Amino acid sequence: MSPSSSLAIPDAAIQAIIGAGRRMDRFHWVPATAGNFSVRLPGGRVAITRSGRHKGFLDADSVMGVDLEGRPEEAGARPSAETLLHCGIYRRFPEAGAVLHGHSVANTVLSRQAGEGIELAGYELLKAFPGLPTHEAAVTLPVFDNDQDIARLQRAVDARWDGMAAISPATGSVIPPGYLIRGHGVYVWARDMDAALARLEALEFMLECELQERRSR
Amino acid sequence: MSPSSSLAIPDAAIQAIIGAGRRMDRFHWVPATAGNFSVRLPGGRVAITRSGRHKGFLDADSVMGVDLEGRPEEAGARPSAETLLHCGIYRRFPEAGAVLHGHSVANTVLSRQAGEGIELAGYELLKAFPGLPTHEAAVTLPVFDNDQDIARLQRAVDARWDGMAAISPATGSVIPPGYLIRGHGVYVWARDMDAALARLEALEFMLECELQERRSR
Amino acid sequence: MSPSSSLAIPDAAIQAIIGAGRRMDRFHWVPATAGNFSVRLPGGRVAITRSGRHKGFLDADSVMGVDLEGRPEEAGARPSAETLLHCGIYRRFPEAGAVLHGHSVANTVLSRQAGEGIELAGYELLKAFPGLPTHEAAVTLPVFDNDQDIARLQRAVDARWDGMAAISPATGSVIPPGYLIRGHGVYVWARDMDAALARLEALEFMLECELQERRSR
Amino acid sequence: MSPSSSLAIPDAAIQAIIGAGRRMDRFHWVPATAGNFSVRLPGGRVAITRSGRHKGFLDADSVMGVDLEGRPEEAGARPSAETLLHCGIYRRFPEAGAVLHGHSVANTVLSRQAGEGIELAGYELLKAFPGLPTHEAAVTLPVFDNDQDIARLQRAVDARWDGMAAISPATGSVIPPGYLIRGHGVYVWARDMDAALARLEALEFMLECELQERRSR
Repeated sequence: MSPSSSLAIPDAAIQAIIGAGRRMDRFHWVPATAGNFSVRLPGGRVAITRSGRHKGFLDADSVMGVDLEGRPEEAGARPSAETLLHCGIYRRFPEAGAVLHGHSVANTVLSRQAGEGIELAGYELLKAFPGLPTHEAAVTLPVFDNDQDIARLQRAVDARWDGMAAISPATGSVIPPGYLIRGHGVYVWARDMDAALARLEALEFMLECELQERRSR
Repeated sequence: MSPSSSLAIPDAAIQAIIGAGRRMDRFHWVPATAGNFSVRLPGGRVAITRSGRHKGFLDADSVMGVDLEGRPEEAGARPSAETLLHCGIYRRFPEAGAVLHGHSVANTVLSRQAGEGIELAGYELLKAFPGLPTHEAAVTLPVFDNDQDIARLQRAVDARWDGMAAISPATGSVIPPGYLIRGHGVYVWARDMDAALARLEALEFMLECELQERRSR
Repeated sequence: MSPSSSLAIPDAAIQAIIGAGRRMDRFHWVPATAGNFSVRLPGGRVAITRSGRHKGFLDADSVMGVDLEGRPEEAGARPSAETLLHCGIYRRFPEAGAVLHGHSVANTVLSRQAGEGIELAGYELLKAFPGLPTHEAAVTLPVFDNDQDIARLQRAVDARWDGMAAISPATGSVIPPGYLIRGHGVYVWARDMDAALARLEALEFMLECELQERRSR
Repeated sequence: MSPSSSLAIPDAAIQAIIGAGRRMDRFHWVPATAGNFSVRLPGGRVAITRSGRHKGFLDADSVMGVDLEGRPEEAGARPSAETLLHCGIYRRFPEAGAVLHGHSVANTVLSRQAGEGIELAGYELLKAFPGLPTHEAAVTLPVFDNDQDIARLQRAVDARWDGMAAISPATGSVIPPGYLIRGHGVYVWARDMDAALARLEALEFMLECELQERRSR
């Protein structure tokens, strides 16, 4: 088998990424060239969106391969700016098969007003998240300060995960279903793209509810 | 006729359920795998969505049969978690031919802030509901506390209906056009799926108006 | 020519009505079976939507003929409940060729909070209305109390128009671009359906701005 | 080559303008006949929308040519009312290849409440603008009073640009990514239509965030 064929991106991964972009565009969650999406491939590879494309209008050429350190498989190819955040998720969570990042008005406004986290409680949709079998649970969505140094931002994310496990090793599986970067959108992940989209829809729905509740109180 | 053919779901019921999901997804009322829909079939049967599917992307395989006690016709098949609420509606209201459950931001936010009911008054769209010939009427939409024990939740719903009939036997026909579960969406029903969708649209429209009115007051 | 052919509705009128319904449904302005639309035909006839249909899913059979008094051309046919309001517009304004009625959240909420009118001022889009060559103009949109007696409601509308002409005969052409019924939506008209849709879009845009302004003040 | 063929509008420019209108209509940014779009052509020519069309339903006939002073290439043809604003942008910014003007609820409401500018700060999406490599930058979007005398309005815009360059000649490249006219929408430009649409989406997203933040504070 030639090297070039070993670097090909499977069509299923490409179609999953293109489809996610179309759906997120329908929800207005990928304005301008915002957002980036990836799928884990066998052999320590990741298929991820190239930098600078509008995510509602992707094609096969918009997807490229990187390794788990974010290094492009093709010399000179430029993956999405936040590739290291995707890689951080794949390294930390072995069950993660797809990662989505998008900007909604709700997640942008709430993350700008929040401290280190946003608590979601009492929603039936909390059941869409892992380790939360009932609406009576509550989850705190971490909020990180934005940082153009993505490696440093990923270290802050890792430090938060490390701290959570240290405080509560018995509940290591109750990882938050995603996290926010202040003024910079949300990251979610799940076993595959459909599950990641479902998690994103659940999260954005609750954030929109939070935004509306604050206004009508 | 073989047993398997007697258990088939009529295509009209399947198409009605698929179409309802697409329309509700367009309105953003079925985030993640939220929502469930059913159609009453002859012979004490109900066609209902299976558990865990995204309701905007249903296909024929997403629909299964249960009896009026919510028991699956196929061994091992898993209907939507709230199947007993659908069955409770079909048992209580002989004229009900279709049931819809969805989550909107408006019904979620308002039900979280409400007490035992939400009054809707002065809307022309109240005429879309049974037993309300004029906009001058008012209707109180019951709000129930959420409960992961669906059988117990259905008993609370039945108790409310029983209480209403006891207080006012003469007006037994002026049943509320639906009910809310706190943080968990709305249930509506009507003679068929088109009528149920129309009722849902009318109800959600008025709830959105209520949400906006509270904010602009 | 046979009587039946003389009663046919021209295809252009049917298509204009079907298309208006689809577009208004896209904007969520015709929930449930709300809304009604008409087109003026030659010979004192009006093509209008039948009662009880969802306006986003009309077909040729959903349109019927009435005369300028609202009497159906076919015995037993039932036009939209507010047919007399359409006829009142065609009788009053000879240049009116199409009439649209819809329910938006903005027009419902604002009309419920308003007195006898809502003033719109300072919007560039005011230029979309007749007799307003500049954004510096202001227009007061009349708001009428809702009434299930449509003939009586039409008399209230006529009385308002009569009063305006009496006060200011010289400016008889500066008729408001539409009117609201409290909790019951908006009426607009124009020379043809495309112009009526444009007027409706301009009006709803400004009402949505008003609703948002009240909240952010 | 005949004069008429030299005046033809290239199909790529027509398709770019038609497509921009469809997308902006999907976002509800071109109500009624609002909005206008243009593309710079070689030889000091500009392709621009004709006056009075609905921008969501343009066809090839909806686009015409003008020179950089806004004079129509065809005798009697009537370009969009604000053609001189487009020309002002092409004359001032040699790199501008496309200009978009639209009306959103957010840009209308905020411009009506603003003074001479609206500051956007702390958004990751600021990176979508020229000369802003990080979210830590801030940009002030100029807001001009509306004026039916478009030549006078363009002189006010030019005076603002002249003043900015005079104050800070070294940062001449950090031009705002667009400007607002009070109650009358936004203007943006970029090297081509796709880039202009991306800039518009980024700008509208941040304005919507600003509108929501003001309400939830």
